[in-house]
Amino acid sequence: MAVTLKEVAILAGVSRSAVSRTFTEGASVSDKTRAKVEKAARDLGYEPNVLARSLTTRRTKLIGLVSDNFRNPLFLQIFDLFTRGLQDLGLRPLLLNLSDAQDPQSSVRMLQQYSVDGVVIASSTLPPAFARAFREAGVPVVHSFGRPSRAPDIHVVGIDNRFCGWLAAETLIARGYRTIGFMGGPETATSTQDRLAGFSEATQNHPEIAVRTKFCAAYSFEAGRMEMARLLGGEPAEAYFCGDDVLSIGAISAVQSAGLSVPDDIGIIGLNDMEMAGWQNINLTTIRQPVREIILSSIELIAAMLDNPARTPETRLFACHIVERGTLRPL
Amino acid sequence: MAVTLKEVAILAGVSRSAVSRTFTEGASVSDKTRAKVEKAARDLGYEPNVLARSLTTRRTKLIGLVSDNFRNPLFLQIFDLFTRGLQDLGLRPLLLNLSDAQDPQSSVRMLQQYSVDGVVIASSTLPPAFARAFREAGVPVVHSFGRPSRAPDIHVVGIDNRFCGWLAAETLIARGYRTIGFMGGPETATSTQDRLAGFSEATQNHPEIAVRTKFCAAYSFEAGRMEMARLLGGEPAEAYFCGDDVLSIGAISAVQSAGLSVPDDIGIIGLNDMEMAGWQNINLTTIRQPVREIILSSIELIAAMLDNPARTPETRLFACHIVERGTLRPL
Repeated sequence: MAVTLKEVAILAGVSRSAVSRTFTEGASVSDKTRAKVEKAARDLGYEPNVLARSLTTRRTKLIGLVSDNFRNPLFLQIFDLFTRGLQDLGLRPLLLNLSDAQDPQSSVRMLQQYSVDGVVIASSTLPPAFARAFREAGVPVVHSFGRPSRAPDIHVVGIDNRFCGWLAAETLIARGYRTIGFMGGPETATSTQDRLAGFSEATQNHPEIAVRTKFCAAYSFEAGRMEMARLLGGEPAEAYFCGDDVLSIGAISAVQSAGLSVPDDIGIIGLNDMEMAGWQNINLTTIRQPVREIILSSIELIAAMLDNPARTPETRLFACHIVERGTLRPL
Repeated sequence: MAVTLKEVAILAGVSRSAVSRTFTEGASVSDKTRAKVEKAARDLGYEPNVLARSLTTRRTKLIGLVSDNFRNPLFLQIFDLFTRGLQDLGLRPLLLNLSDAQDPQSSVRMLQQYSVDGVVIASSTLPPAFARAFREAGVPVVHSFGRPSRAPDIHVVGIDNRFCGWLAAETLIARGYRTIGFMGGPETATSTQDRLAGFSEATQNHPEIAVRTKFCAAYSFEAGRMEMARLLGGEPAEAYFCGDDVLSIGAISAVQSAGLSVPDDIGIIGLNDMEMAGWQNINLTTIRQPVREIILSSIELIAAMLDNPARTPETRLFACHIVERGTLRPL
């Protein structure tokens, strides 16, 4: 078993508080006491316990990393970047899986019990109520991949989803498609709503273009495959902007299973540019979301809030652009 | 800020220890004191802090989840199952990313500082020295996807990789391939070594079969793609057993990029049966590793060790079988 603070105190012949103060940055302790404690700690192989120390400093260095999508391969990259980035700062990610819908209050209680120093919500589908619940509980929070607000009360780092929807529609129209579809993620997700708003904004300026709109149950391969299979059973559009890359890959799979070809029969454009989009057997034309920049920026913000929890809420949006591959007909 | 134990103690007019005991299962406290503490806690909205309580109970309910592969989509499924399974038991995963090689001792120190109750290593590539280092530090540890030992000193849950290698070779030979290849993961990984040993055991009984052996730098798409591209530059075998599914998908991609076809020109069989293997645009014939069962069993073991850290080390191996799809020529 690990050596305890109490054992160090007994061997050093000092109070437990004196041991605690010795290992707390900035705490007051006499040179004589410090020397005794340090010798006892060395002799016993004592490692100061960050959590025990947190009772004095009120810092645990634990950051709650909250997510609700473990079916989208993009999230593996997200977890990789978050864990490395937090570890580099000496912070530790406590991973909270909210895939099964839970109410915001119970999530807040759970993370509060673990005395997290802060929370990063990594989700484009969790309702803003989650971020707000943490904020109201006095826990520093950053919403990565969240929706910007005109009067932000939460730090949000992400992209302009409305612009992305607009860009997708303009791209499809420029390629000569005359019937275009929006095959979005869950209708309740703010990311879906904003992408559709931008898509509609673009098509409204093109009365010659016919537009179809559909939503998928989740940002997952299976949801995309099933929705496209249904669309192919009716009168599909000539090309689709799919809610994200994993929906796109599901849609492509359905097109191929029906004996049709992408892009010859149906054009597809995705969003994210996750690693797999570049795999030669996927080769997806997509809109690149700068995931790395969003995560590094989110970590920077949450770390800054640990020093200044009252920091003015900020919205940071990163530019997106088309990555041309093989799933749309050429210009 | 969250209400502290000290504030509850002051309002209730009792010692801090009395407050702590009130919220500690099984601890002794008078009814009168308990009533005073519970009233003060209610009035202040106090949530007993699991970490603070851990100083008394020596239980934090934190489980270190150690992994080193954030490039393999299989791990998203692994993180999903681990986080849900641990949450269901009231345990919390502290995620440790060891992608950048670190020595076992520094990982142990890091997790000890956070007073984890136990550690699950989820990796088929981390050397056994990591699991052993945790054990020697007195931290309960389970190695998921680890190598079984004849004289186990660590709990291991996984599969018989040697059998899988044997099964892959026998399957390729039964399909009539006469030149077969082993395109494994990292040569230093015990999973790679064991799969090769089983593969060689099978081919030794078939002197008419020519065998090629290659290793990839990592279990990742890019490593598989690059290695297969190199193989195609020389004289490739007729079919390959790839180290796992993500290497297989990389290999298929390289075959297609070279203008060749799977399975007409080159046969491929993988290992894992991760979700993507079943996607129609991948459609990979593979050996199914029961990931869900391995993880649920690992969680069961680590939970049992929290109650009995001296529990006799155990090896749990789950059966694997071929999942037939479209990347090998038919029987």
